[in-house]
Amino acid sequence: MAPSSTISFLSDFGDADEFVGVVHGVVERIAPGTRIIDIGHRVPRGDVRAGALMLLRAIQYLPDGVVLAVVDPGVGTDRGGVAVETGRGIFVGPDNGLLAPAVAMVGGALRAVRLESEEFRLPRHGTSFDGRDVFAPAAAVLASGEASLDDLGSAVDPGSLMSLLLPLVDHGDGVVQGEVWWVDGYGNAQTNISPEDLALIGVAPGDRVVLQVGSATHELEWASAYGAAGRGAPLLHADSHGLMAIAVQGGSAAESLMLHAGLSVGLRRSRHLKQLDHEDDTGHQQ
Amino acid sequence: MAPSSTISFLSDFGDADEFVGVVHGVVERIAPGTRIIDIGHRVPRGDVRAGALMLLRAIQYLPDGVVLAVVDPGVGTDRGGVAVETGRGIFVGPDNGLLAPAVAMVGGALRAVRLESEEFRLPRHGTSFDGRDVFAPAAAVLASGEASLDDLGSAVDPGSLMSLLLPLVDHGDGVVQGEVWWVDGYGNAQTNISPEDLALIGVAPGDRVVLQVGSATHELEWASAYGAAGRGAPLLHADSHGLMAIAVQGGSAAESLMLHAGLSVGLRRSRHLKQLDHEDDTGHQQ
Amino acid sequence: MAPSSTISFLSDFGDADEFVGVVHGVVERIAPGTRIIDIGHRVPRGDVRAGALMLLRAIQYLPDGVVLAVVDPGVGTDRGGVAVETGRGIFVGPDNGLLAPAVAMVGGALRAVRLESEEFRLPRHGTSFDGRDVFAPAAAVLASGEASLDDLGSAVDPGSLMSLLLPLVDHGDGVVQGEVWWVDGYGNAQTNISPEDLALIGVAPGDRVVLQVGSATHELEWASAYGAAGRGAPLLHADSHGLMAIAVQGGSAAESLMLHAGLSVGLRRSRHLKQLDHEDDTGHQQ
Repeated sequence: MAPSSTISFLSDFGDADEFVGVVHGVVERIAPGTRIIDIGHRVPRGDVRAGALMLLRAIQYLPDGVVLAVVDPGVGTDRGGVAVETGRGIFVGPDNGLLAPAVAMVGGALRAVRLESEEFRLPRHGTSFDGRDVFAPAAAVLASGEASLDDLGSAVDPGSLMSLLLPLVDHGDGVVQGEVWWVDGYGNAQTNISPEDLALIGVAPGDRVVLQVGSATHELEWASAYGAAGRGAPLLHADSHGLMAIAVQGGSAAESLMLHAGLSVGLRRSRHLKQLDHEDDTGHQQ
Repeated sequence: MAPSSTISFLSDFGDADEFVGVVHGVVERIAPGTRIIDIGHRVPRGDVRAGALMLLRAIQYLPDGVVLAVVDPGVGTDRGGVAVETGRGIFVGPDNGLLAPAVAMVGGALRAVRLESEEFRLPRHGTSFDGRDVFAPAAAVLASGEASLDDLGSAVDPGSLMSLLLPLVDHGDGVVQGEVWWVDGYGNAQTNISPEDLALIGVAPGDRVVLQVGSATHELEWASAYGAAGRGAPLLHADSHGLMAIAVQGGSAAESLMLHAGLSVGLRRSRHLKQLDHEDDTGHQQ
Repeated sequence: MAPSSTISFLSDFGDADEFVGVVHGVVERIAPGTRIIDIGHRVPRGDVRAGALMLLRAIQYLPDGVVLAVVDPGVGTDRGGVAVETGRGIFVGPDNGLLAPAVAMVGGALRAVRLESEEFRLPRHGTSFDGRDVFAPAAAVLASGEASLDDLGSAVDPGSLMSLLLPLVDHGDGVVQGEVWWVDGYGNAQTNISPEDLALIGVAPGDRVVLQVGSATHELEWASAYGAAGRGAPLLHADSHGLMAIAVQGGSAAESLMLHAGLSVGLRRSRHLKQLDHEDDTGHQQ
């Protein structure tokens, strides 16, 4: 028998309880020896978009195989669970948009089934803990090859899977309007704005930029590295995913500038600096 | 040689330090390739009962093999460590009641020894860190088969192992009196009251129920799913372990109703609803 | 092919995000089947000394193989990354002193190279996430044997690697002056003072000792075990690394006595007790 595929596992189960360990146990009981990579389990409870973005950021760094992702607020989840085949492996999770951006990133869904087969579920005691009773067994039998996609339930049109609307950036009048996507544990705030978006309004690395948050504005430098601004000063940079992020060397940009996921932000070239450039056109504007 | 058994590992070591990693390292040095499943390491410090209940909830989902559990407040632990053989594998930990409920759940102890052999301990530097120096080596040599139970110390009568008194529920006068056993990271409060306990006083799924906490009362519906009550409204349900639990959709029941582990709670049929049933006996009381 | 070496992995990445999981994913993609032991990932952000001490405490309990350690404040890190060969395996991380104490503990560096080869890096998107893009790939190819040290970059004199100055203790006038090195998650405060240091000023286990913290003094007993002092009372003991530590049975010494890493502390024999000894010289002073 071929060795099991690796399961990459993301959830909002947190680490205070035994939920993650129990899922590991269920997989080991069903498919002994299967490797599990814990992507992260501290997605804010029930925050499907935050989970989807975490999976999107991670997916290109994960091995091919099975992805098990469970963030399931339990409201309006009558659509149930799905297994989605892609060119990089099979994604298992709720059909609530959680999987959609990562599935799109790896080339889209080739086939999908609803997780309906009672054969590959654990018996329920009271309310189902779907992560343990439905999703973990499905991931385990898919990873081990004990079951194929079709064994798990009836086919569903991949086009009918729930999608997740991610906000688009808006370019107009010299401003790129976007959104904070993610604040990491260090307080760095990643936006959905790319360096290419800024290039369209004539902003380049090294320029000074105005960050608009509601009625407040902050002037930042687009720095090439964390250390470029002074300690404690906020800076703008293209982060390690290639998206514009706001960071504070040795501190938390989210705290300093009161940024949080979902917040609308605008970026525009600083007029102040243009004047300075004009007055002192030495090229040494850093 | 047969492959190593899996070690399922629970502790109150937390995740701020290297304690859990060092135990993994010790096992890998002694028994290379042994798989470890981390059940959970955030049992409240020294809370033997909370650890025992976590192990009890998890045990049926863990692979057969070795269970390593360490919650050891260090007071009155002159009884030392034990290894307990069961039909599902060997439990290693302190003889303070931590292992008892899970051992009972898998059919009870077949044999037990005290962990006395210096041969299978790490050398001490100052105070012993028993998880690292005593329990991890014992679990490792048992998992790899390098040592048998008898190699680790002298036999002890399984009946003399310390037990853990878990509270019983009390049915009387139309009320089931029990206790909050566990508040999970979401704020759900699991009680030791089962659906069968409620059936004895004539309460069934869909009924409205009065929760008594001290002098306060709260009226809840026994809902079949999380989503059944409105967002923010507390509900009663049979949770995924088959025990009655109090939850708040999209919120924390523990915060809303000030519930915590160890708190006495009573459940009785709502009289208010009985009147309503009488007035409008349509069967559509949900 | 020989099986991969184990990678022991320490960082300040925290557990809120997917950083640790992504490093696991990168290693699995490059060197499938490599085992990773997570030493700990909650080193305070950018605190090189705290990370170095954690690695130092853990190193003797880790398997031979590759050590991957990443705590990299990003200021003054122009020295880049290194791989350092020792008698116990290869250490991979930034050249900022993080690796130095553990490398010294295992006998010192035999050889070292700078991590310069683009071949064994991931392509960058914007700012490099060195843990993911530089250090994880290097650890993976070293663990699998796909690359040797020399493949990763040019040799560097081990003597030129950045060291980490750890504070020394000072014995004078009946006082040992040292420092709190570490406060663990339980609030225990480990100092850099050893039992041998105290022996030099005539203090032995069982003695009463005065702890000086700034202008405050606290009288403690040098107890042989946690349980020896009363619940809630602070005690001094030789901890499980053989260093003098201040603990409170069932509580947090750090909170009670306002101790934190880096704080200067003095220890001297209690004069008060000497008087008591004189008056009642029974030898039963514990």
